[in-house]
Amino acid sequence: MNVQSVSSYAFFDDEPADTRAAIMQATYRALCEHGYAGLTIQRIGDEFPKSKSLLYHHYDGKDALLVEFLSFMLRRFEATIPDREYEDARDQLTAIFDHTLPRDPAPERAQFRAAMVELRAQATTNRAYRTHFTRNDRFFRERFAAVVRRGIEEGVFREVDPDRVAAMVVATIHGAMQEEATTNGAESAHVREELRAYVRSQLLAENVTPETIG
Amino acid sequence: MNVQSVSSYAFFDDEPADTRAAIMQATYRALCEHGYAGLTIQRIGDEFPKSKSLLYHHYDGKDALLVEFLSFMLRRFEATIPDREYEDARDQLTAIFDHTLPRDPAPERAQFRAAMVELRAQATTNRAYRTHFTRNDRFFRERFAAVVRRGIEEGVFREVDPDRVAAMVVATIHGAMQEEATTNGAESAHVREELRAYVRSQLLAENVTPETIG
Repeated sequence: MNVQSVSSYAFFDDEPADTRAAIMQATYRALCEHGYAGLTIQRIGDEFPKSKSLLYHHYDGKDALLVEFLSFMLRRFEATIPDREYEDARDQLTAIFDHTLPRDPAPERAQFRAAMVELRAQATTNRAYRTHFTRNDRFFRERFAAVVRRGIEEGVFREVDPDRVAAMVVATIHGAMQEEATTNGAESAHVREELRAYVRSQLLAENVTPETIG
Repeated sequence: MNVQSVSSYAFFDDEPADTRAAIMQATYRALCEHGYAGLTIQRIGDEFPKSKSLLYHHYDGKDALLVEFLSFMLRRFEATIPDREYEDARDQLTAIFDHTLPRDPAPERAQFRAAMVELRAQATTNRAYRTHFTRNDRFFRERFAAVVRRGIEEGVFREVDPDRVAAMVVATIHGAMQEEATTNGAESAHVREELRAYVRSQLLAENVTPETIG
């Protein structure tokens, strides 16, 4: 499970550009449907319009394919970071909280996130997964730190430590996602609201009116 | 992975009181050594001084045994909550942060936490694990909320929403633990320090000197 999972499913609305993208799309669909434990190359093949032998030929088992899938998703995310115009850094942070901890997550998104919890667990023993999630988490911490730095430059945030803030925010979002995927009583709405309260009390500069945060 | 894992290993220093406790101790040891994926009833039996057939007789596979193990740990934790005397509620929160996100976790503890990430991932598809982790997380949220309520009553904390604070703190600690178990570059020290900063800026009453928090 990771922050990346948030936007990833939107990647697969379009017709895949090439064979590799088609394999990644099939992997995504099979992962949502069967989860990690239920996933087989055969089942990925069921979602793949071309020859299944291509899959067997290219990948040495489902873990090799899944690690490439994770890497593919992260690279695509890196390349397509929305340069949406936010009013300011606090506006951007709030949008990220709403996006990562939505009020009513779509079922497909919940399924994908559950599968990501399973993939993440592989990283406790499998070095390739571990390398991926190390890179993944570093990327998201750096993204958050950049937003905080921007806020400091804008005068919206105080002179906080951007890396420290980013470490906490990413951990909080990951923890809330994990809880959603593994329990029935997750309190994501509470987490989202308290993250906003944290931004107001810990980040917001003295001269900025808290009410404008929404 | 859960807050409970923090103290659990200390449960097994003593000689087990009965056969069931001995089975739980053997399960704990085998889980630390082999992780979830590598665990078998046979390997638990290797840690068990009595007849292995007892294990096969009692438990219908490793998941049944592990779910009972999780439940055993949580109940023991519930029953043995340290009624240590803390100066006040903020002192208690700081102690919990230091305890759950320690500077140098012992190798056995890191192994156990990694196994807990694997067990937690089973809850995405297995109802018995899911029921356990639902109860587990609720328990820890309630524990944190009680500390926050105490702080409000003491006049140390402001009139914050204890349930909301608890939801965020538990998510943050779980996220940091997950990251430690699944990546090489976890930033737990940053998370711990930022949680302290959050307590100072968001919880601490106006008339309390932040410096005394340490």
